[in-house]
Amino acid sequence: MSETPSRRIDRIQPFRVMALLAEARELEQQGRDIVHMEIGEPDFPTPPPVVEAATRAIADGKVHYTPAVGLSALREAIAGFYQDRYGVSVPAQRIVVTPGASGALLLALGVLLEPGQGVMLADPGYPCNRNFAHFLDARVQPVPVQADTGYQLSLALVQQHWQADTRVVMLASPANPTGTLIPSAELEAIIDWVERQGGTVIVDEIYHGLIYGESPPTALGCSERVIVINSFSKYFGMTGWRIGWLVAPGELIPGIDKLAQNLFLSASTPAQHAALAAFEPQTLDILEQRREAFEQRRDFLLPALREIGFDIKVEPQGAFYLYADCRRFTDDSFAFAQALLQEIGVAITPGNDFGDNQPQRHVRFAYTTSLARLQEGVRRLQQRLAPDG
Amino acid sequence: MSETPSRRIDRIQPFRVMALLAEARELEQQGRDIVHMEIGEPDFPTPPPVVEAATRAIADGKVHYTPAVGLSALREAIAGFYQDRYGVSVPAQRIVVTPGASGALLLALGVLLEPGQGVMLADPGYPCNRNFAHFLDARVQPVPVQADTGYQLSLALVQQHWQADTRVVMLASPANPTGTLIPSAELEAIIDWVERQGGTVIVDEIYHGLIYGESPPTALGCSERVIVINSFSKYFGMTGWRIGWLVAPGELIPGIDKLAQNLFLSASTPAQHAALAAFEPQTLDILEQRREAFEQRRDFLLPALREIGFDIKVEPQGAFYLYADCRRFTDDSFAFAQALLQEIGVAITPGNDFGDNQPQRHVRFAYTTSLARLQEGVRRLQQRLAPDG
Repeated sequence: MSETPSRRIDRIQPFRVMALLAEARELEQQGRDIVHMEIGEPDFPTPPPVVEAATRAIADGKVHYTPAVGLSALREAIAGFYQDRYGVSVPAQRIVVTPGASGALLLALGVLLEPGQGVMLADPGYPCNRNFAHFLDARVQPVPVQADTGYQLSLALVQQHWQADTRVVMLASPANPTGTLIPSAELEAIIDWVERQGGTVIVDEIYHGLIYGESPPTALGCSERVIVINSFSKYFGMTGWRIGWLVAPGELIPGIDKLAQNLFLSASTPAQHAALAAFEPQTLDILEQRREAFEQRRDFLLPALREIGFDIKVEPQGAFYLYADCRRFTDDSFAFAQALLQEIGVAITPGNDFGDNQPQRHVRFAYTTSLARLQEGVRRLQQRLAPDG
Repeated sequence: MSETPSRRIDRIQPFRVMALLAEARELEQQGRDIVHMEIGEPDFPTPPPVVEAATRAIADGKVHYTPAVGLSALREAIAGFYQDRYGVSVPAQRIVVTPGASGALLLALGVLLEPGQGVMLADPGYPCNRNFAHFLDARVQPVPVQADTGYQLSLALVQQHWQADTRVVMLASPANPTGTLIPSAELEAIIDWVERQGGTVIVDEIYHGLIYGESPPTALGCSERVIVINSFSKYFGMTGWRIGWLVAPGELIPGIDKLAQNLFLSASTPAQHAALAAFEPQTLDILEQRREAFEQRRDFLLPALREIGFDIKVEPQGAFYLYADCRRFTDDSFAFAQALLQEIGVAITPGNDFGDNQPQRHVRFAYTTSLARLQEGVRRLQQRLAPDG
């Protein structure tokens, strides 16, 4: 019995990309050159002003526990960010600093879900969302989404799939793995309808800083009952620091505080002090340049992959992912990804990691490496998949 | 419905000491001098070699995600620590680096417990243990422990309280709030018996580096099926960095890895690189000096409190806590703690935070402040509680 893990572990799938990543590292150790388009982590380092703030804080001995909900100054800074960037007034008391968006998702779902209650989410989608629900013995209610809704839940889909036990609807805009947005009017309509059913909408905005084109409003402008998840990882370049936040209705904050006290004690103190510098004008300038670099990469990679024969049905407006139908080449995306890795040293993520909606016919490309490396990847793909193209 | 938290939140009590801590901070802002004996956090800063390692890692751009189970080098370093300090050979593959002991406890209980299964633990005990079980919809099976077993579970108590659905027995040595150890023979007998029932023992060794007198063996020497929780927070002086570890049976590691991938992605990368320096001889020298300072504090505070009239029935051999029966002064330890704070500016933790076993008659003193401050605290307590003593 001791060595048998609980059933919740069986319901959680390991990330298939981890096996590919391990294979890629092995090939690299053998001297092979691998173009990494599988990794959901920006290649940019943490911005220098953030690094300097961290170093200063550590030197000053700011290494003790903070309140479970985070440093007051950081909660205030995040509130200021919502005011400055979105013109939305969010009281700092509704903001909780967390160990990454992962910590925010665990707190948000933990405070909302009874065992057995339903969590509606888009398939394909970020794999951890399903697994948080499994961890809490909630019921995952995946909704297959297609290109016609930009791979997003729509009001019609939410209404059609709503069940008596549905408690939470999870949205992400921009989404992983598709990079697509939910149109603002649709977002507002979904939130309004779900709240009238007595449910709660959680909106993942961790890629909200990485949108190419006009920046849409935050979901926080729609309702004071929505929960928004965000992170210093992706846009702010602080992945390994493990720091993020959530915004929740004021009534849920005491429960979230209790959970955070017990599950985490607090988020990393050096990371919190570092993050204080994330909103400085100098940092935001750097981040804006990086956003432009990601946009350039997208603008190169999207047509190049289409030309090779990948069917990318929706032009992604954000994040750093392209979600491609690869049926022209394979009906087994995992074997396909393995073959590309072994034969031409190009690493991509097979669809299996994102759900059960035709995963064998989809792959995800991440443009988290330099334009030069993406060009090299495309050259290899072109030669292997469309030599006469 | 949206603003109603899940039932698991109702089962989780907030820490009463947080209210006192907030009150203490308020008094300090009003200019009052407060002697802090409520805080479970060493007053020492992170050791300089660890700080330097962190600063170097950050400057070198080591700020990206690590594997979910932690940096290989750190897992190896922890294995080396077990070899050097305890003469126990633990393969690095069985070691998982976590966001503090909190993360380790969530992974360990998450991989083991089905909803409704039982977790046996000592009352009084570390409050989060109960709350992790509540979070996972497991059943908490508290066992009231008394001075006769050093406030620890004994084999007899475990046998007496074992139920058909008991899955996990949680031990801590040294324990919070009592600072007491489980005798090695008893520990071995408990582990042996529980494993023969098909259960798993989790041993919290986060205060194992802070033992005054002969250092006992780690529970890892007793069995390869036991799970040990440890941390860089207390002994290694890295509280706010949020970094710890667990050692588990090899068969559970894939499940723990999956959980860690989803719940955390990984522990803080700067903290992991910093922790690599925690085992260096120069750091261990500093930690040994600090351990001696804690021992001095205990040796001052224990007789001083007894003289005032606090009944400390068991001499604590480790950690930095004294668990005192205060019935000579009060039958409401929370009101008592509040009165001491308001009247003489001495902050201590009421028994309520540690369980339901006569909490109103117990308080915890933490000697996490300097000897001079402890002397000042004792002077005030003496004057208020035993003016003619």
